[in-house]
Amino acid sequence: MLTVGIVGGTGYTGAELLRLLSVHPEVNIAAITSRSHAGTPVDVMYPSLRGYIQLAFAEPEAGLLAACDVVFFATPNGTAMELVPELLERGTRVIDLAADFRLKDVTVWEQYYGMKHVCPDLLREAVYGLPELNRQLIKEARLIANPGCYPTAVSLGFMPLLTNGTVDSGSLIADVKSGASGAGRQAKVANLYGEVAEDFHAYGVAGHRHLPEIRQTLSQVAGYPVHLVFVPHLVPMVRGIHATLYARLTEEVDLQMLFEDYYRDEWCVDVMPAGSHPGTGSVRGSNSCRLAVHRPGNGETVVVLAVEDNLVKGAAGQAVQNMNIMFGLEESLGLTQAAVWP
Amino acid sequence: MLTVGIVGGTGYTGAELLRLLSVHPEVNIAAITSRSHAGTPVDVMYPSLRGYIQLAFAEPEAGLLAACDVVFFATPNGTAMELVPELLERGTRVIDLAADFRLKDVTVWEQYYGMKHVCPDLLREAVYGLPELNRQLIKEARLIANPGCYPTAVSLGFMPLLTNGTVDSGSLIADVKSGASGAGRQAKVANLYGEVAEDFHAYGVAGHRHLPEIRQTLSQVAGYPVHLVFVPHLVPMVRGIHATLYARLTEEVDLQMLFEDYYRDEWCVDVMPAGSHPGTGSVRGSNSCRLAVHRPGNGETVVVLAVEDNLVKGAAGQAVQNMNIMFGLEESLGLTQAAVWP
Amino acid sequence: MLTVGIVGGTGYTGAELLRLLSVHPEVNIAAITSRSHAGTPVDVMYPSLRGYIQLAFAEPEAGLLAACDVVFFATPNGTAMELVPELLERGTRVIDLAADFRLKDVTVWEQYYGMKHVCPDLLREAVYGLPELNRQLIKEARLIANPGCYPTAVSLGFMPLLTNGTVDSGSLIADVKSGASGAGRQAKVANLYGEVAEDFHAYGVAGHRHLPEIRQTLSQVAGYPVHLVFVPHLVPMVRGIHATLYARLTEEVDLQMLFEDYYRDEWCVDVMPAGSHPGTGSVRGSNSCRLAVHRPGNGETVVVLAVEDNLVKGAAGQAVQNMNIMFGLEESLGLTQAAVWP
Amino acid sequence: MLTVGIVGGTGYTGAELLRLLSVHPEVNIAAITSRSHAGTPVDVMYPSLRGYIQLAFAEPEAGLLAACDVVFFATPNGTAMELVPELLERGTRVIDLAADFRLKDVTVWEQYYGMKHVCPDLLREAVYGLPELNRQLIKEARLIANPGCYPTAVSLGFMPLLTNGTVDSGSLIADVKSGASGAGRQAKVANLYGEVAEDFHAYGVAGHRHLPEIRQTLSQVAGYPVHLVFVPHLVPMVRGIHATLYARLTEEVDLQMLFEDYYRDEWCVDVMPAGSHPGTGSVRGSNSCRLAVHRPGNGETVVVLAVEDNLVKGAAGQAVQNMNIMFGLEESLGLTQAAVWP
Repeated sequence: MLTVGIVGGTGYTGAELLRLLSVHPEVNIAAITSRSHAGTPVDVMYPSLRGYIQLAFAEPEAGLLAACDVVFFATPNGTAMELVPELLERGTRVIDLAADFRLKDVTVWEQYYGMKHVCPDLLREAVYGLPELNRQLIKEARLIANPGCYPTAVSLGFMPLLTNGTVDSGSLIADVKSGASGAGRQAKVANLYGEVAEDFHAYGVAGHRHLPEIRQTLSQVAGYPVHLVFVPHLVPMVRGIHATLYARLTEEVDLQMLFEDYYRDEWCVDVMPAGSHPGTGSVRGSNSCRLAVHRPGNGETVVVLAVEDNLVKGAAGQAVQNMNIMFGLEESLGLTQAAVWP
Repeated sequence: MLTVGIVGGTGYTGAELLRLLSVHPEVNIAAITSRSHAGTPVDVMYPSLRGYIQLAFAEPEAGLLAACDVVFFATPNGTAMELVPELLERGTRVIDLAADFRLKDVTVWEQYYGMKHVCPDLLREAVYGLPELNRQLIKEARLIANPGCYPTAVSLGFMPLLTNGTVDSGSLIADVKSGASGAGRQAKVANLYGEVAEDFHAYGVAGHRHLPEIRQTLSQVAGYPVHLVFVPHLVPMVRGIHATLYARLTEEVDLQMLFEDYYRDEWCVDVMPAGSHPGTGSVRGSNSCRLAVHRPGNGETVVVLAVEDNLVKGAAGQAVQNMNIMFGLEESLGLTQAAVWP
Repeated sequence: MLTVGIVGGTGYTGAELLRLLSVHPEVNIAAITSRSHAGTPVDVMYPSLRGYIQLAFAEPEAGLLAACDVVFFATPNGTAMELVPELLERGTRVIDLAADFRLKDVTVWEQYYGMKHVCPDLLREAVYGLPELNRQLIKEARLIANPGCYPTAVSLGFMPLLTNGTVDSGSLIADVKSGASGAGRQAKVANLYGEVAEDFHAYGVAGHRHLPEIRQTLSQVAGYPVHLVFVPHLVPMVRGIHATLYARLTEEVDLQMLFEDYYRDEWCVDVMPAGSHPGTGSVRGSNSCRLAVHRPGNGETVVVLAVEDNLVKGAAGQAVQNMNIMFGLEESLGLTQAAVWP
Repeated sequence: MLTVGIVGGTGYTGAELLRLLSVHPEVNIAAITSRSHAGTPVDVMYPSLRGYIQLAFAEPEAGLLAACDVVFFATPNGTAMELVPELLERGTRVIDLAADFRLKDVTVWEQYYGMKHVCPDLLREAVYGLPELNRQLIKEARLIANPGCYPTAVSLGFMPLLTNGTVDSGSLIADVKSGASGAGRQAKVANLYGEVAEDFHAYGVAGHRHLPEIRQTLSQVAGYPVHLVFVPHLVPMVRGIHATLYARLTEEVDLQMLFEDYYRDEWCVDVMPAGSHPGTGSVRGSNSCRLAVHRPGNGETVVVLAVEDNLVKGAAGQAVQNMNIMFGLEESLGLTQAAVWP
């Protein structure tokens, strides 16, 4: 039985962590902290968890957290790095769902996140928690940088094509679409129902924070720097990411077989039959990523469709998957629910 | 391990049954039938179930079904009654999620459902599967009439008030609101996205089929015939029922305590703290019904708010709950997932 | 040509006023003010108005506004009352879309709005701008209290029943449902897409600010104090209010004829044929209120269904209608667009 | 005053035509036909038009239609071509909102639409009704092929880039997203609320009917055959198309100026300021197409964002625009309403 702490559980990612961990058979949630809501019972904030969790939010104290086997950070960017060094020192392992440890290059990190990094040395140690790429490293890691929601879908979709140089690495385009929960639970006008419903628009075309993260992963897979055009869009739905990926083929290859082979042993990456169009609804609430690969008109462009639930495989579910790997549990433990559809 | 059959699994209720039963630890799904889709693998129709179920839809044959311990009917009204007599005779127990066995009075049934009932004698035997009302009878039942979605929410909300005559039984008003999945998966213009989204309207004010079902239950609880005005509405959301119930108080009573006492031992009926406004989102995908009771302005009208997921506690989840009771399993087995929120 | 000013145009009501007034043939928008966005071009905040309005938001100065024939206030409650006395004194007429002048009883106003009223004497002078009730008074008014969105729908629905004492005035129940734009454009967590979508819940059951406003209107119509139970709900849609109204009949009457006669000369109140279920989508973007009257099971309860667009007939459209009346224009001028459906 | 007929007015496009034409100052709607609903008053099918149109649907007879100055076809593909030759012969001009006359190459048409064309000679005569491309030809045309919804947005977005060979015409990618009304008002399971809401998916990646139409237009503009990868997606919203267009630059150019110059004289194509992300909500119900052009990271890929209301500029509004041009009216007559936002 693992003793688990959660820092910053008042956003959508925190709520999803609680949903998954509260029924995880090997987890005991010992503490959940929130500076702004200390004292509030968790199920008052989240009535959906009535009967599942008895805790109240606590002040984020190092002592409380250091007593845990593992601590999840579901905090705004820049918070985890303040507490992580002490926790690691005291023997607690950490899974950060924010971006504090995702980039290896501190200069790029500081440029994209607009602040000074307080423990750049840990960037080297942190393991990027994409199990399909780094499973062996995750097993031994003290500190996991849990991937972003977009980077998970885009990376899983492009990886089979880049491993063998099947596509021109200068031609990559990721046209990605996310439900509104991806923007978090912040009280901003842009996130209001009246703004998001019955609307569709792109954002951050000039440069989104997930771009360097994706480039880093894809470059690692390809073995050399890849270039990527990345255009995110906001979809009027709560959960779900759909990545539509484009690349120019450099060789003749059986794309369907390439993808099926690549993910043959993965339990939560599902390569759909040829001709499929996976929908985000088919993974709602589940830890699956479904992929389909197309070659329209038998032309030179390959199109990959990838869907995930941004809060599960794109955040909290993948964090639990990482925890399972780190502590030698069955990797899918607590993550075997089917998608809630419709 | 129970051997389970499902007749008519191509609608939303059937899909939900499959979601719940495919991970139920004591269930082996032996057959799922569909006349129109025989031969189609279930996970081709429902990609959300890829990895969870290997079966294909089969022709609905009595032999196949009679080999099961229990058969669920998720069929249009009028289908179950054709097959049920033979199944019962051959020793298979039946849970009908349609309306074939919900009314005791065959005349009323034939009036509301517009067809001749082929086995009216079974109406007497059938047990109305609302566990909070009929748990003891369900244990021994061969044939369960699984309650309708509206009747479940309305009955659970009114029951504490009617048991002791706390309200005037001639004053009941149920203003109920349902998500679009309640209308099923039929290809009708009225159910199209373009018609339902960004719209809200009442329907069936002149008389809805669930009205006699609710009246029957409430009259049983009250001990005498109750009158009810019942106005259903369609909400632009997929899942969820919200019942707003009104009645005139006939005595001074601590309403909060009345409700808490009434449901103290129920695991899936949740009486919220005084002043609460439960949302349908707080029960999405779960078998919970949440209730709140109000007395605005300390006047003579009591207002009860009741929410449920129409596909779970309002249909498939309650059917599984009934199965658990019938076969002596833990009543909540396979139904312990927290709601998927947001 | 009227010279028009708008104070506080950064919310949904302000945006709707701009949409309607920018194409109104007798209106010249001279000023639109916003303390927080002074200097921002209006069409930068509202790209939907690109090409329709060239102004930038200005500081709210009395001089600027007093030069207008009429000033609309689309401000939070408590703002208009600070400026209105000076504007009236300088000869500018005022239409307040907030609640500052809606209640005649200053004690009730201060209790419900939680602040001191700075010009209680104007409460007496202000005309409640429901044209179907007060058309003659509106013609001469200097100061219009534009009705709230719920009160408009509820009042129009109940008025025909109360005029002649057709129903028991102690039995009124208004179960009302509003789209999310009714909560305004404030950056609150409760209004986020992730909270509102796929959810339905009641709120303010203990007492909503629109309750005394509705009671005041209905009591005026009835000629004696009426009692009302008022339960508002939030619907996952942007625009639209649906009121489901219940009352006990005290006499036999042809309800359909009663309603048709009552509204025979009204251009924007539409009594639907018997048996209708008007949807909010049928009035989206238009100034119509559609009504249907039912008597389920020929019982003692009458059910009225009323729909309107909360931003048009429930706010900005009605304000323009009031302006037209005040200045002797055709009452429907600038308000003749059909609803945008689907 | 033009006498206008509409064939097939029971779908979303027909409803939108009625909304626009019923308030058009120079139009008298003389007939609207529907074989399946002959005899039904139009406002019974569309309550949103109560008070705007008194007609009932009529049988589609040539005599009735030939008496009109212009007839709009809002029919399924393959219907217009049966009636159009006779109407043209009798001197009635035709605007076909379906695809019957959109392709010049009858072989390609028959391949994509799966039927024999009955009047291929008219394919040559028909003018493709994109005013920004063919305004002069439209003036004299007897027969207009009104462009498809996707082709309008994609063509308007790519045209400035192709006119001068600014991009590699072999590199074009159109990742397009449409609201559900684009699929029409057919009673299909795939279009149900329960399927579309809270879901996002691509479709037709292998080849969509709008692909040859777009290729034809872009090749005309470029002066040589262009290649295009076209991936449509379904968005959970009612109205709106968002096209995200990608192409490889072949020269240094001021993209913002290129676009602004190209559309300087167009009243309904709006080039947004540099850095903009137009949303579909900003054109809801209006005839505008808004464009923004980006060059992420100053790289070799240009990204164009284009939004329109698929039922207005993408269908009925553009048809009215074509009618205005054909009959020498102000081009924007009846199309000057601002978008309904939110």
